[in-house]
Amino acid sequence: MSTPPSTARVADRRQRVQSAEMGLSVLKALTRLGGAASLTATAAEVGESPAKVHRYLASLCQQGFVEQSPTNQHYYLAQESIAIGLAALRQCDPIRLGEASLQRLRQALEVTAFLAVMGNKGATVLRMEEPTLPVTVNIRAGSVLSTLWSATGRVFLGYSNDRQVTDMAEQELAEASAERRAQLDGTRPVEQLRQQVRARGWAMANDSLLKGISALAAPVFDATGNVCACLTTLGATGGFDLRPDGAICPALLQEARLISRAMGYQGH
Amino acid sequence: MSTPPSTARVADRRQRVQSAEMGLSVLKALTRLGGAASLTATAAEVGESPAKVHRYLASLCQQGFVEQSPTNQHYYLAQESIAIGLAALRQCDPIRLGEASLQRLRQALEVTAFLAVMGNKGATVLRMEEPTLPVTVNIRAGSVLSTLWSATGRVFLGYSNDRQVTDMAEQELAEASAERRAQLDGTRPVEQLRQQVRARGWAMANDSLLKGISALAAPVFDATGNVCACLTTLGATGGFDLRPDGAICPALLQEARLISRAMGYQGH
Repeated sequence: MSTPPSTARVADRRQRVQSAEMGLSVLKALTRLGGAASLTATAAEVGESPAKVHRYLASLCQQGFVEQSPTNQHYYLAQESIAIGLAALRQCDPIRLGEASLQRLRQALEVTAFLAVMGNKGATVLRMEEPTLPVTVNIRAGSVLSTLWSATGRVFLGYSNDRQVTDMAEQELAEASAERRAQLDGTRPVEQLRQQVRARGWAMANDSLLKGISALAAPVFDATGNVCACLTTLGATGGFDLRPDGAICPALLQEARLISRAMGYQGH
Repeated sequence: MSTPPSTARVADRRQRVQSAEMGLSVLKALTRLGGAASLTATAAEVGESPAKVHRYLASLCQQGFVEQSPTNQHYYLAQESIAIGLAALRQCDPIRLGEASLQRLRQALEVTAFLAVMGNKGATVLRMEEPTLPVTVNIRAGSVLSTLWSATGRVFLGYSNDRQVTDMAEQELAEASAERRAQLDGTRPVEQLRQQVRARGWAMANDSLLKGISALAAPVFDATGNVCACLTTLGATGGFDLRPDGAICPALLQEARLISRAMGYQGH
């Protein structure tokens, strides 16, 4: 017989320390208020009495997370808060943080999913998950993907501010056969593709990199708003749902947003 | 009769919440360990038993400050830690954080002290403290100081990566009288001054901006390592100690370092 959920939750709660959590709640409230606020405003935001919140602020001050201004008595996030944020940012890794997303995509959609970063040779696959189907479309970790013809490369083309990425795409365009070039629109196809990706918020490749293979890719952003990785799903063109409101695209975008948020991205 | 210090300290401790502080200590320990560590390593760093530290980590996880990796069970600083750091950085203000330094410099050294930032017209005085002597050297908030001839401007010249700052200095050099130019060394005086400031870590002006006035200035850095303000002391040349190991320079540098640290700067 399994433990009923309510009992499990009580046990879990006992494992924790309530007043430590209250201290952290006060810290979060001060953050929501922009990093600086009066005692009254902080107490109202936490939903506790000023007397109680004052004790927790005293502890936060004692530990260097908060400081009180001598001029207006407001509380400010201080040095230790910055130090923790910087340490958290330094160890942020979209691949580690995206692990769970890859697994959820594989399980829910039975598609191959991977995470890539922009390497010095182009978009590079770092981590992948493939479904447990008898036949799957596979991609190898370490593979470098085309900037212009892969969905992954197109995400970096759309969002990277690195001039080198555009140069790689222009280079690939110059080297492409007439047949391949015909897949792209307009007189300035690289720029148009870039704008299209940004307008949509994701990129697609439909037989453009490899015949019979389709992919959807979404950007992962870091705390500074730069694209730091790309989350991609792919499959055989016939059985892969490329529609923006289909089975795959919304789920992919949702997972990419979750990874971005874990990276400290505050947009969306 | 005043309260004896020991009693005051006990009262102060009663105002705080011990287990909230323990939670924050665990968070700081994880930060010192680079933002990610095992339970054993974290407990060793805090100096408490793993069982006890585990309860606090559970609370930190519950509040989103920490996450446990499903692959290696290590604890990582997570989203809320980043959010707090970013909020703390956003409300960092060298002028507010430097207020106490200005007062200490004034009180300890009886010199005029001010904080300036680089504005669009040049180094601009924002906040000043003057000693309570009958005659003092005064400077007005809002004043814009020369980039080339003031100690304050020279700090920004030395540390700013903004091309515009160098341009301002070159412009001032081109417009200077032969007599003034003769105060500077070498064939490329702006570049030499820049290198000198960086090598020393502070800047000096000895009658160069105004005859009879000397000043010492030190850079204040922000969390990204950029110069965000300048802390300057000044006085009448005859009575102002310009020596690097004199009464003023070490105290000025120490206060500038304190402000930088409060800004989240992790160098020095």
